[in-house]
Amino acid sequence: MRIAVVGAGVVGLSVAWRLAAAGHDVELHDDAPGQGASHAAAGMLAPAGEAWFGEEELIRLGLAGLRQWPEFAARLGEAAGLDVGLRTEGSLLVGVDDADAATLDQVRELLSRHGVDTEQLTRREPRRHESGLAPGLRRVVLTTADRSVDNRLVVQALQRAAAAAGVVLRGERVDVDGRGVRTRDGDAVQADAVVVAAGADLRAVRGLPEQVAGAVRPVKGQILRLRTESELVTHTVRGLVRGDAVYIVPRADGELVVGATSEELGRDVRVTGDGVYELLRRGIALVPGLRECEFVEAIARSRPGTPDNLPLIGPVDDGVFVAGGHYRAGFLLAPTTAEAILAYVEGRPPPEEIAGCDPARFGLAPVQTAPGAFGGAYGRKTEAEAREETI
Amino acid sequence: MRIAVVGAGVVGLSVAWRLAAAGHDVELHDDAPGQGASHAAAGMLAPAGEAWFGEEELIRLGLAGLRQWPEFAARLGEAAGLDVGLRTEGSLLVGVDDADAATLDQVRELLSRHGVDTEQLTRREPRRHESGLAPGLRRVVLTTADRSVDNRLVVQALQRAAAAAGVVLRGERVDVDGRGVRTRDGDAVQADAVVVAAGADLRAVRGLPEQVAGAVRPVKGQILRLRTESELVTHTVRGLVRGDAVYIVPRADGELVVGATSEELGRDVRVTGDGVYELLRRGIALVPGLRECEFVEAIARSRPGTPDNLPLIGPVDDGVFVAGGHYRAGFLLAPTTAEAILAYVEGRPPPEEIAGCDPARFGLAPVQTAPGAFGGAYGRKTEAEAREETI
Repeated sequence: MRIAVVGAGVVGLSVAWRLAAAGHDVELHDDAPGQGASHAAAGMLAPAGEAWFGEEELIRLGLAGLRQWPEFAARLGEAAGLDVGLRTEGSLLVGVDDADAATLDQVRELLSRHGVDTEQLTRREPRRHESGLAPGLRRVVLTTADRSVDNRLVVQALQRAAAAAGVVLRGERVDVDGRGVRTRDGDAVQADAVVVAAGADLRAVRGLPEQVAGAVRPVKGQILRLRTESELVTHTVRGLVRGDAVYIVPRADGELVVGATSEELGRDVRVTGDGVYELLRRGIALVPGLRECEFVEAIARSRPGTPDNLPLIGPVDDGVFVAGGHYRAGFLLAPTTAEAILAYVEGRPPPEEIAGCDPARFGLAPVQTAPGAFGGAYGRKTEAEAREETI
Repeated sequence: MRIAVVGAGVVGLSVAWRLAAAGHDVELHDDAPGQGASHAAAGMLAPAGEAWFGEEELIRLGLAGLRQWPEFAARLGEAAGLDVGLRTEGSLLVGVDDADAATLDQVRELLSRHGVDTEQLTRREPRRHESGLAPGLRRVVLTTADRSVDNRLVVQALQRAAAAAGVVLRGERVDVDGRGVRTRDGDAVQADAVVVAAGADLRAVRGLPEQVAGAVRPVKGQILRLRTESELVTHTVRGLVRGDAVYIVPRADGELVVGATSEELGRDVRVTGDGVYELLRRGIALVPGLRECEFVEAIARSRPGTPDNLPLIGPVDDGVFVAGGHYRAGFLLAPTTAEAILAYVEGRPPPEEIAGCDPARFGLAPVQTAPGAFGGAYGRKTEAEAREETI
């Protein structure tokens, strides 16, 4: 099939690569490829560290997503000839005062209900695990479930892998037009299916059902990058500083990512005094050595939020699919999303774990996607191809 | 005369412009013109706000320097066709706690001894003067003596004015070689005199007497630029936050400069987590609205410190002059320095106020610079020119 993918962030790239690897002809459209939220992200693959009350479905989805990553990272590294910096130390969940500790105790219970083991470190253990942690933290919990990757290396590797698999990148902004796309100059690009993975820009892509585009809102995130020559921490440190959240993600090359704000400010992507100050204040409270690090970058991007914090993955119109609304979990859920979109496009049942991600859940009439509908709805397959599938 | 000036920061540019305007042939050498400390500076012309105990000579020099600025800014603006953003509101000296207030009371006495009027604002006045000030500050003192300029506009204007006056900029690194200079490629540039205004790089310029080059050390300064659309403050705010110093310099275009650290770290110009955090913490304590401002830039540069915090202005060898070591007062003292160097080069007595700036004070044998020595020591003037001078 000929498939147009809109958006070359981590999700769009993963989808495009997966589709092309499965034998489809893929064109990927983005006027600023890799420069959206994927460029700012911390690269946390941390369903445990990110677990929050009332988000049971997202936790399950995240844990399922994480299970895809070891193989995904290995295949990606091989295809791109580039190590994406997968770290397996896990997360330290830390709290500064008694109230933070009480919250973390509840998070432990929540994780336990999802089968995630955690270990509360005793008074002297934390700084043995991580000499960079501040002294006197009220609670330190270790979970080895979480992972992290270098987001920019992942994007770079996906670009290489996708290109090697035959994906053609078009540096232009497009809208959905039937099963294909149309550039802002009016040139139509015919295709058999279109997958929109436009992140926080989903609302700006014309030609999508209003209920889908309208379900995604931009959520501003500010994030810092610092650098040290000596290794400051090895785990992702996820903490509460008297109720204020922050995380610190270390890279093997000495980079430390400190994030991130979540601000309901529309399309504003200005870095602010408050954003930088608060991230440093909270980060330094957990890892004082951040003071000595080089301050490399402060950046802000819009992430695609949804009303229930779950992504939108699936069909929204005849031959039109969405892979969006990944909010804080774009990297974590990219492999799962790619597999799901491949299944949808090919008319196979998608992985069970994305059951909660139906884009129709915000008021769209359900779109016919049952197995077997493929031929009728989106099919351009030859009889030979169809026969092959049934073998 | 043909004069080589080494260093195209605010001091070197001012010197080069002044010399060229007086009719000399000037070549200005710098491999990164305008990109040193002058690029990072806040542009404070604040001998009152910067006054400190034990620096009587520097205060006098600064007050004399400030008196040059209105005319200098006017001439510069005219020559360059560019307004350099001279602000005349003055400084608010503020203290957060009782100890800060006590320090400010002593600073008021110090300023009073130098004839600088200050006014202690009563409880309600400060926020009437500046609605952007934090509530509850222990002490707020107004001095209308201080000024500020936009440092980058001044550098840009000086570049234009110097070029218009005939100064030729050579984008190369040079050392002193006799009365001229020599490039690192070994090309000699003959001149009748050389003026070294290399800022914190003075020590790296070969061919200077060791006692002079060695008197200048790099002092690292980190500084932030933020931006707001509404005017947050109109005065320079210079404060103590429980003993920690910070200043905030507003520009007419909404830029706010928050500075600056002073770190004895050699040539290190890395921006650090600590630098950014501390400047924001202190700045926000005085002007909370900094939180809402856009965070535009964090930058670090080396400033040229001297053992007594006074600059080095004058002859150091036959036909060799230094205009350096201006530390935190490069902009404030640039006009005075330019006049002094012109006088020295032309064999006239320099302005009285720079008496304390003799570069010989750190162990160099005094250099012959008495009026009348010009012809013998540095002269290449024609008889006609010499005659003209006596008229």
